Amino acid sequence: MTSQPHSPQITAITDLPVSQAKWATLKKIDYVDQSGTSRSWEMAARKTRGKAGVDAVAIGNIILHPSRPPCTVLVIQYRPPLDAYTVEWPAGLIDADETPDQAAIRELKEETGYETAKVLDVSPTVAADPGLTNANMQLVMVEVHLKEGDAPPEQRLDDGENIERVVVPLADMYAKLIEYLKKERYVVAAKLWHWAAGLEFARTQKYI
Amino acid sequence: MTSQPHSPQITAITDLPVSQAKWATLKKIDYVDQSGTSRSWEMAARKTRGKAGVDAVAIGNIILHPSRPPCTVLVIQYRPPLDAYTVEWPAGLIDADETPDQAAIRELKEETGYETAKVLDVSPTVAADPGLTNANMQLVMVEVHLKEGDAPPEQRLDDGENIERVVVPLADMYAKLIEYLKKERYVVAAKLWHWAAGLEFARTQKYI
Repeated sequence: MTSQPHSPQITAITDLPVSQAKWATLKKIDYVDQSGTSRSWEMAARKTRGKAGVDAVAIGNIILHPSRPPCTVLVIQYRPPLDAYTVEWPAGLIDADETPDQAAIRELKEETGYETAKVLDVSPTVAADPGLTNANMQLVMVEVHLKEGDAPPEQRLDDGENIERVVVPLADMYAKLIEYLKKERYVVAAKLWHWAAGLEFARTQKYI
Repeated sequence: MTSQPHSPQITAITDLPVSQAKWATLKKIDYVDQSGTSRSWEMAARKTRGKAGVDAVAIGNIILHPSRPPCTVLVIQYRPPLDAYTVEWPAGLIDADETPDQAAIRELKEETGYETAKVLDVSPTVAADPGLTNANMQLVMVEVHLKEGDAPPEQRLDDGENIERVVVPLADMYAKLIEYLKKERYVVAAKLWHWAAGLEFARTQKYI
């Protein structure tokens, strides 16, 4: 992020009354459990979920080029909740009128510039952090086919978005994430970490 | 969950004032971004984080037995935020005076009954859902070695905990998760899904 004129800086963290929140909220759930006992649970939730009933997509991607090893493009951006630069797959909220595939293609284009991706698989809806929130997402796996002379594409970021791209050979993905995690003020997203760890486990394990 | 006398049921979901919340909270972050512009961000956070600075551990586990294929034990529990039974690896919050390894061994024992696990790897701290929360976790990979005649261990659940265990061959893990996702009122946790998807990708892909 050396091209940035400023290092992001938090100036205040304050309690946010639920009545003033636009994007997130806090709920109390009263429920009766399996034994018939009344209990309660505290939950954070997004306020932006549309018709589809799914908050977000992440775009697991394979970048194929005639003369380079298969790669994946990761995005790095300052995330205020962590006060750190997070390494993630491209991702974003699903707009009200979108399917997960459409949201995935749009977000990939906005955040990385890659325009023509082939959708390989759309995961079922899975729960982001089930003890704390109802937030959910789908993992859309895509393939991007580049030609020999293709120039790096241009990002189409929204105003205020500041996202760095990094293209990493799939075979080095796990090692690269560990490198990032050693850098000051860098964090890796848990979902990306788990996918890379599953891949690495399969490649190095002795069990199956 | 056929042995359960009641199906859990939500009776009310209400706004939870930040001042009344015990476990979770909502914060507004004011910050100055890379371009020098003042912005704000809404964040959910846990109120339980201890000295270690890490909220939780998940226990990625390999169960080895002389005459059975390598397996992993998953836990299924009703999660009020999803109003569903979630399929996850054993996991839990790190107590104030614990290391991640200690929390992992304790939670594995409580939720599954397996007492003697060998820690293979403790991941760096990764971010659970970086756009919404500061929640973070570490993935602790462990190996459990069983002997031929070992009886299934007893769980040591807290009062009110109701957790079903399921032991799945590693080679079938991805397919089993898809089976669960087809069942009514079952959801898979995103982190477990990503690990299994990474494993399956490595086993079936043509790239590396």
